[in-house]
Amino acid sequence: MNLNKSDIESLDKRYRATLINSLAGVRPAVLVGTKSASGQTNLAIFNSLIHIGADPALWGLLIRPATVRRDTLNNIQETGSYTINFIPAELHKAAHTTSAKFNDEISEFSACGFEEENIEGVIAPFVRSAVVKAGMKLVSAQDISLNGTILVIGSIEKIIAADEYLTGDGFFNPEKADVLTCAGLDAYTRVVMAGRWSYARPDQTVQPLEF
Amino acid sequence: MNLNKSDIESLDKRYRATLINSLAGVRPAVLVGTKSASGQTNLAIFNSLIHIGADPALWGLLIRPATVRRDTLNNIQETGSYTINFIPAELHKAAHTTSAKFNDEISEFSACGFEEENIEGVIAPFVRSAVVKAGMKLVSAQDISLNGTILVIGSIEKIIAADEYLTGDGFFNPEKADVLTCAGLDAYTRVVMAGRWSYARPDQTVQPLEF
Repeated sequence: MNLNKSDIESLDKRYRATLINSLAGVRPAVLVGTKSASGQTNLAIFNSLIHIGADPALWGLLIRPATVRRDTLNNIQETGSYTINFIPAELHKAAHTTSAKFNDEISEFSACGFEEENIEGVIAPFVRSAVVKAGMKLVSAQDISLNGTILVIGSIEKIIAADEYLTGDGFFNPEKADVLTCAGLDAYTRVVMAGRWSYARPDQTVQPLEF
Repeated sequence: MNLNKSDIESLDKRYRATLINSLAGVRPAVLVGTKSASGQTNLAIFNSLIHIGADPALWGLLIRPATVRRDTLNNIQETGSYTINFIPAELHKAAHTTSAKFNDEISEFSACGFEEENIEGVIAPFVRSAVVKAGMKLVSAQDISLNGTILVIGSIEKIIAADEYLTGDGFFNPEKADVLTCAGLDAYTRVVMAGRWSYARPDQTVQPLEF
């Protein structure tokens, strides 16, 4: 396959979406938990988590307002609160089903077999079976005018993970946690470690680090 | 581990960077090729590739101007051209070494063992051994004022991948291509497929798709 811009533009719409999304590579598949002002919970899968920075600890989500994810965006804007849940890879089928357009009064938690967990200090519900649970507070929502998406940035207010997946220097091992990742819109993947290397300097050979 | 915001803020700086980066999950590790106006080539590893949209086909890179990636940003702004190269997982050590702060007159291509490939119509050099090669044109650079990073968005002007990794509906299989991914700042990972599912609807069971 060798396509120029005009070739890409003339592809079938669905083929192009699958191609360009999957070529963009593997990324986290996270479940985002929210609650409306009236108390209705919502759970939706996102493949657009972005690490923004560690100091302050900020993560982003790129949200397409024209899709079912609108519920999530509305709830985040109403309450300022949301959770990001990294789940075990074996739950990929259930996670995928949260993308269906359920009626507003149906919570994807119960419809898709995920148990809600409420944790003090965070309005939005967590997924009990998640291997990493992050409680987020909305700090900014920036329009990407090129295509009408919104970059939602939140600060990490609470983060929970099992110690057994962490090394002494703070590295979280995604293979040990068997955390769910995805490729494109509909494919789910697992992680295998290849290696971890010390800080690179021009005059030194990098050394393997613990993972 | 169960940390609140104030716990996160009081962590050792390096520990926090490793923790928050690695908890953010697995993502592509791509080599970005550029050329300065004077013709000096540059190659740098990024873990911040973002799928922005398929129509038009847009990908983003989150760039921290205060780091060695400044060369990449300068070159992109000078020429408007850059390449995104997805490489085989086995090259993770060499890919990591491109993050060293080499002198300006040294190209990371030769210093780290990657061969330049020039393709007509794209100013910036590609990595010959890449399994997916994307020629990009800068369309926008948006400040993320919260922490001084810049979201660089480019349109895909050319995309090259081997047909053997693609299904009939445009899905690129990252396990077959054994494409490099990463976790955080210094850990490298491979991909294993878990499953692929049909479009989810509330009243239907999802069906497995080919991959």
